[in-house]
Amino acid sequence: MDALTPTSVDSALSTAVLTAARAAKDAQPALARLHRGTKDRLLLAMADALVARTEEIVAANARDLEAADAAGMAAGLRDRLALDPQRVSSIAQQLRDAAALPDPVGEVVRGSVLDNGLELREVRVPMGVIGMVYEARPNVTVDAAGLALKAGSAVVLRGGSAALHSNTALIAVLRSVLADHDLPEDLIVGIDAHGREGVDVLMRARGLVDVLIPRGGAGLIRRVVEHSLVPVIETGTGKTHVLVDASADLDQAVEIVANAKTQRVGVCNALETLLVHRDIAGEALPRLAAPLAEAGVRFHADEEASAFLAESGTGAEVIPAVEEDWETEYLALDLAVKVVADLDQALAHIREHSTGHTESILTRDSVSQHRFLTEVDSAVVMANASTRFSDGGEFGFGAEIGISTQKLHARGPMGLREITASKWLVVGQGQSRP
Amino acid sequence: MDALTPTSVDSALSTAVLTAARAAKDAQPALARLHRGTKDRLLLAMADALVARTEEIVAANARDLEAADAAGMAAGLRDRLALDPQRVSSIAQQLRDAAALPDPVGEVVRGSVLDNGLELREVRVPMGVIGMVYEARPNVTVDAAGLALKAGSAVVLRGGSAALHSNTALIAVLRSVLADHDLPEDLIVGIDAHGREGVDVLMRARGLVDVLIPRGGAGLIRRVVEHSLVPVIETGTGKTHVLVDASADLDQAVEIVANAKTQRVGVCNALETLLVHRDIAGEALPRLAAPLAEAGVRFHADEEASAFLAESGTGAEVIPAVEEDWETEYLALDLAVKVVADLDQALAHIREHSTGHTESILTRDSVSQHRFLTEVDSAVVMANASTRFSDGGEFGFGAEIGISTQKLHARGPMGLREITASKWLVVGQGQSRP
Repeated sequence: MDALTPTSVDSALSTAVLTAARAAKDAQPALARLHRGTKDRLLLAMADALVARTEEIVAANARDLEAADAAGMAAGLRDRLALDPQRVSSIAQQLRDAAALPDPVGEVVRGSVLDNGLELREVRVPMGVIGMVYEARPNVTVDAAGLALKAGSAVVLRGGSAALHSNTALIAVLRSVLADHDLPEDLIVGIDAHGREGVDVLMRARGLVDVLIPRGGAGLIRRVVEHSLVPVIETGTGKTHVLVDASADLDQAVEIVANAKTQRVGVCNALETLLVHRDIAGEALPRLAAPLAEAGVRFHADEEASAFLAESGTGAEVIPAVEEDWETEYLALDLAVKVVADLDQALAHIREHSTGHTESILTRDSVSQHRFLTEVDSAVVMANASTRFSDGGEFGFGAEIGISTQKLHARGPMGLREITASKWLVVGQGQSRP
Repeated sequence: MDALTPTSVDSALSTAVLTAARAAKDAQPALARLHRGTKDRLLLAMADALVARTEEIVAANARDLEAADAAGMAAGLRDRLALDPQRVSSIAQQLRDAAALPDPVGEVVRGSVLDNGLELREVRVPMGVIGMVYEARPNVTVDAAGLALKAGSAVVLRGGSAALHSNTALIAVLRSVLADHDLPEDLIVGIDAHGREGVDVLMRARGLVDVLIPRGGAGLIRRVVEHSLVPVIETGTGKTHVLVDASADLDQAVEIVANAKTQRVGVCNALETLLVHRDIAGEALPRLAAPLAEAGVRFHADEEASAFLAESGTGAEVIPAVEEDWETEYLALDLAVKVVADLDQALAHIREHSTGHTESILTRDSVSQHRFLTEVDSAVVMANASTRFSDGGEFGFGAEIGISTQKLHARGPMGLREITASKWLVVGQGQSRP
């Protein structure tokens, strides 16, 4: 069986997950009635409770780490899983940060009085129940719960099985604070105990879950997108391009390309394919390569770029690019490099190979800049800036629940607004339609 | 096999539909580059061409009508299918109306300059390729093509098989105008010839089609929602409620309820369930029933409402309500009627039975009005107005492609804005992320 095909699920498990989702749905109206002050007090109380119960949380995490070590988990994944008192404190701070953000609920998006006197307003309302499916990162558990709560929605959380004990402990703390405030605990529901099959059930819980947000690797996201009956917001994969145009300021370009590739490597807004205009490739490529080679970047270069890199004297490791390199999100110290004849070839390459996340042109030519910004059909399109700015925090959203690479509902970094819905209010004085 | 399960599709048909969708995707960038002036001239030329070729269109329609008559098509459906010169002229007018609307593409949704000098803008962009699946209404063919074109998107059209010849003729006219303007004809593609199986292929054309909008009966919409891999905007089913509160102005209520139920019967924003507060039920129900009974409305009433209606002397036809009545969108001269003890019971009834389309409270009590507007979780929530105002034209959108009853992306009447996507533009002056 294809690993991405949902498994058939036994009915007890199915009932348990659907019961949990229904409990979240039934709990949500109690949250929808709260105003900002109450919601913020709740978030602050949750932050305090997490800090107060650090010992218990770290102990639960130790059980997950023990299992991870026994299973030989990779260092990077283990690091994302690990909690210590300082990390618990950072997680609590995420909730305090969420409390400081404006309430998206109730915002009037637009409004007018119609010719017939009807008062029309489109207002933001809670989404309802948000399903989050993510990997073994306990901080996401708290972050997602906090943002959903602030936005008036109940949340059904499914983190990676490797974080089962950590997530269970964190969710228990958050639920106890809900109970202390006379709110239904089922505003925050975890279904980690039901494993991978739990996700299959959640994906079919149409009518109970209003939106499903998968956060993680390409396989997880594809699986959810292809099999969910619940509407999905697709996040994440970033095969990100930077085009160094013929007119680029090379000093800036060297700095920006190094920043985009190496400032943080394993993230979706890191640079993955560098395109260089042929007219400056001979001068630019050796200069661009120097800091990258020093940082240990391996170049997967087309023939023309390979020649320039070989002559660069930077000692860069150059591997001939194969077709697959134009499609790969490395999330590592690897970079695909291609020399392009002109802007049209660059745009065509991006159109064919981009995942629609983030692309940037480095140029001093206003026509090239205009064409790039207009014609590239990605969530975030930049000029003369590092792709690493494609981020909800950097955009000033204060928090980010993921980066949408789909066109419906939300595109690009998603903050609190993007996890709300809207509705229309129409207030009349007795109008009937003629 | 369940009638709603996609059939397995032979590969020649599949290839043909996917080729059509890919052709639309490849054509779309040529449209995306056009500015409003050119798009509007195109729409006006299409309107002129439809009028000029009326004879050919009506002749094609006659073939569909002949087949419809042979198959004994119901009068209402036949009427929606039929074209004559005057109707062709109205259809052409829809295109002229679309030309008169502002261009949604390029609108700046929000923007700011960040602390680091990055200029940030969210702008509306074309969706890409819009798939429309609808029933045998030739006017929808032209309307959808025109609105998609104005919004910068290519369109793949699948109307009902009963309108095959009409749609083929209309699409041929529109495509010939595209060719006359040196634009790719495949901006408008019809797949009617591939029948019902064509829809199954279209639903799987992820990556070629950006959004699928089903417009029609509940069965069609459910089939698309449940089986589509392409993101869907769910439209339409309206189990619409009006609550006549204890404090309602009864003169207004009589007029509004009659308007909501009988001004036009077979539409999604027509009234389907009337809830009446117990405190005024004895006085209100006979008065509310009189104009409805005169219009031929049959009442499916709960026990309490039945008693009041029986005593009303209006000669109303009263049938005991069964559980199914609270769920049925009659689209006919039928009305479910229930007496509720208070606002809470009305809200609970709506929460359980509404399809989330449109609900209205008739009241003079500001607390009841506030609670109803806040607590009812539907696309459009009204006070003291007829549900028939839940409509893109009435909202001032100038055109309507359907009414969304889902929470993602668009909720309520959808105009040109709702069939666009957005992207973020970030213009820097050499910024790297610290």
